[in-house]
Amino acid sequence: MSKHALEEVLHPQSVAVVGASDNPNASGYFFTRHLIDYGYRGKIYPINPGRPEILGMKAYPSLKEIPGSVDYVICCIPASGVLDLLKDCSPKRVKCVHLFTGRFSETGRQDAAELEQEILKQARKAGIRLIGPNCMGLYYPREGISFGYDFPKESGTVGVASQSGGGATYLVHLASLRGIRFSKVISYGNALDLNECDLLDYFSRDPETEIILMYIEGAKDGRKFLDALRQAASIKPVIVMKGGRGDAGTRAAVSHTAALASSTKMWATLIDQAGAVSAQDFEEMADLAVSFCFLPPIKGNRVGIVGVGGGPSVLAADQCEEEGLDVIPVPAGIREELKSKGIPIWDWIGNPVDASIIGGFITGIEMLEMMARNENFDLLIGIINEDAPFGKESLLSRLRTDARGYIKVKKGSSKPLLGVVGEKGPGIKDHNHWRWRMLSEARTRLIDTGIPVYPTIGRAARAARKLIDYYQRQE
Amino acid sequence: MSKHALEEVLHPQSVAVVGASDNPNASGYFFTRHLIDYGYRGKIYPINPGRPEILGMKAYPSLKEIPGSVDYVICCIPASGVLDLLKDCSPKRVKCVHLFTGRFSETGRQDAAELEQEILKQARKAGIRLIGPNCMGLYYPREGISFGYDFPKESGTVGVASQSGGGATYLVHLASLRGIRFSKVISYGNALDLNECDLLDYFSRDPETEIILMYIEGAKDGRKFLDALRQAASIKPVIVMKGGRGDAGTRAAVSHTAALASSTKMWATLIDQAGAVSAQDFEEMADLAVSFCFLPPIKGNRVGIVGVGGGPSVLAADQCEEEGLDVIPVPAGIREELKSKGIPIWDWIGNPVDASIIGGFITGIEMLEMMARNENFDLLIGIINEDAPFGKESLLSRLRTDARGYIKVKKGSSKPLLGVVGEKGPGIKDHNHWRWRMLSEARTRLIDTGIPVYPTIGRAARAARKLIDYYQRQE
Repeated sequence: MSKHALEEVLHPQSVAVVGASDNPNASGYFFTRHLIDYGYRGKIYPINPGRPEILGMKAYPSLKEIPGSVDYVICCIPASGVLDLLKDCSPKRVKCVHLFTGRFSETGRQDAAELEQEILKQARKAGIRLIGPNCMGLYYPREGISFGYDFPKESGTVGVASQSGGGATYLVHLASLRGIRFSKVISYGNALDLNECDLLDYFSRDPETEIILMYIEGAKDGRKFLDALRQAASIKPVIVMKGGRGDAGTRAAVSHTAALASSTKMWATLIDQAGAVSAQDFEEMADLAVSFCFLPPIKGNRVGIVGVGGGPSVLAADQCEEEGLDVIPVPAGIREELKSKGIPIWDWIGNPVDASIIGGFITGIEMLEMMARNENFDLLIGIINEDAPFGKESLLSRLRTDARGYIKVKKGSSKPLLGVVGEKGPGIKDHNHWRWRMLSEARTRLIDTGIPVYPTIGRAARAARKLIDYYQRQE
Repeated sequence: MSKHALEEVLHPQSVAVVGASDNPNASGYFFTRHLIDYGYRGKIYPINPGRPEILGMKAYPSLKEIPGSVDYVICCIPASGVLDLLKDCSPKRVKCVHLFTGRFSETGRQDAAELEQEILKQARKAGIRLIGPNCMGLYYPREGISFGYDFPKESGTVGVASQSGGGATYLVHLASLRGIRFSKVISYGNALDLNECDLLDYFSRDPETEIILMYIEGAKDGRKFLDALRQAASIKPVIVMKGGRGDAGTRAAVSHTAALASSTKMWATLIDQAGAVSAQDFEEMADLAVSFCFLPPIKGNRVGIVGVGGGPSVLAADQCEEEGLDVIPVPAGIREELKSKGIPIWDWIGNPVDASIIGGFITGIEMLEMMARNENFDLLIGIINEDAPFGKESLLSRLRTDARGYIKVKKGSSKPLLGVVGEKGPGIKDHNHWRWRMLSEARTRLIDTGIPVYPTIGRAARAARKLIDYYQRQE
């Protein structure tokens, strides 16, 4: 693949922050601070007419005063100053301006929209690419550039294009808890210049990116977007979430990024037809991201389930079926194996394996191992049971045995294995309760082994189903 | 209302634990230990032929040796010993036997099912009520009886009948985190004697119970259950979850509690027609429980939303609409008020109120206060924003301001107010990160003020919608 035009833009040798500040409540403080904190290796130029020094670095009154050229500008000044800034950019051979600056067309005001168009015109004339306006810009851990103050510093393989900066921030936090790391995240706001099509094209050709996530509120040109999406989805998995699906959401999206949003159905069809995968909210987007990152292709929908007993295993079966998985009965081969081992309840054990009846005869892990070897199962789900009824010690021991067992099965088999570990909302007094710490520990161990972890069986099943559909469409 | 026959059974003056034990891995240990730990005030009789003393109390070789009568027996011995035990119960004037003992009809074995029927016959002959078999029995905090080792010791107003003991345990943990406390929870397993109809009848007439939750895998007699459900739902809110809704779930339910389960649709219709409220999983059951506990009746579906900005507020609108709420535009009265206050973005602010654009002009809380006063809103949702982009301090301060504001609105207005606080699944290294502790703190403060808290806007909206439907059917 040839080098994409954006490649150069995203590897700046120098970054100027216009509106840089020492005030820890100002955006210009954070964008500067992050360059230091994330280890950006190029030159950093804080721009502020009132300060000789910012965060221990020499500050410049304007772009013009900087010696030599500047590759990348982060603009944190008000909208009214942007046209003048662009005039200064040209002689400095600036390649890209990230306009954190907002209050343009998203306000619904005629004069603001006109100013936005004039900015575009001037930038095009000067050959400068624009990210935004009204966006958080770039998080590129490998380059040491970030718009979030506590994002992971390590790199990964997931690329994100998000029209919303708040959404991108939320998604980075959410998905990184679940073991996802990012190649780069681009919050692109009003998409005045760099838009959804450019970003799909870029990410699909970016060797650092294996999976693309996109949050979009509205495409300027539906047909072009569809083409770009189809093209990108033919190269790697693309997960798309459309914001502004209904009437109220559309109103909110218009005032947020001036997008021309459309109806839920049109978008679902669009995403489907293009061979991409649709998500309904950031939580589902994270579910799909871990699924594509951690799982091999799933070839069919026959699922085996272990980990919980009684009612929860009944509900696990219901929820898997409701999401379109096939919770098959225990295959004859396993039945025979149980019988030949002399397990007295060989004819009673089912799928899901009910943890409340097998004790003393066989473990859930042994059942899971048999399922992993059996050709009738396309995927397996192991649930971490947080509620063994008889005491802390027995629960802790079962839980550790189960986590260890899932890890063993994962390491010894190529069968897709999904883990379920509850996410709980304790009160401040319960925050450190051993039960929730224990879940955190199990979660870490599974994720570190490369087992994707979901907070509920229903969400695991839904994500699995979407993966199955995706791979079936691919064939 | 006359005193229900079960009232006496549930207020025993003495409890014998048959199969009591000092072995901390045995069920008979826990059932004895809980009577001490939860402060049961009646007489406790551990029964074990091999021990003179258990947990510091005199133990008896059998029921016969106990001086005087015994009201309530918890049976932890194997199925084969139950008929003999019943013979001993009669002379001791036992009113109720809770059969924790399992391996009866749920095994699918003919001889086990026959033994179960014989037990029922002998118990009826002796006038003894049975809870179970194959169940966890009773959690009644006011009486000091519990089947869980870390349930709340305080009493509440929610009564639970659950065919699954694991499910009941999970639900008690889940709902108590969210501020729910219980009148009594009865895990009733195979429903050999005391069944779903008895329990609905009892809870509906129980003055300690204001809301009934029921987890059921199968009713012995569909028509009788429907009648009992209709009758109970005419007295107080009943939330019902059916396990074993599909093919696989039904197979699992049959081997779990020998229930004759049926199709998803039949059950949804059944629950609906009876005037009860259906839940799909324990999480939704907890959502509905906090809604009925903490909220006044909601009269309509027009919702006002504050707390998040940008993309998340667009998605909040989408998800509320998708659940059937009406995210109305900002009413003219509020528009006028904003204009008269000289707010320059009076015509731009929308519903949801986008937190990312109002800064410096007006706060989300001030908007929420206007919405609380405005007759066009039937309910309000306040979201705790966990991802303000600019630094820990600004996030902490916004978050505390928002939590305080929601509390003020709740105290100053009768308008139904729902809170959203994310539930996160950190790894063990992140467990104590200030971000998650901060969410735990906000959750506690809202719940302590009586604001129901939901982990996502989608779940808040779905629960609200079911409440609205419920109250509209009531009219």
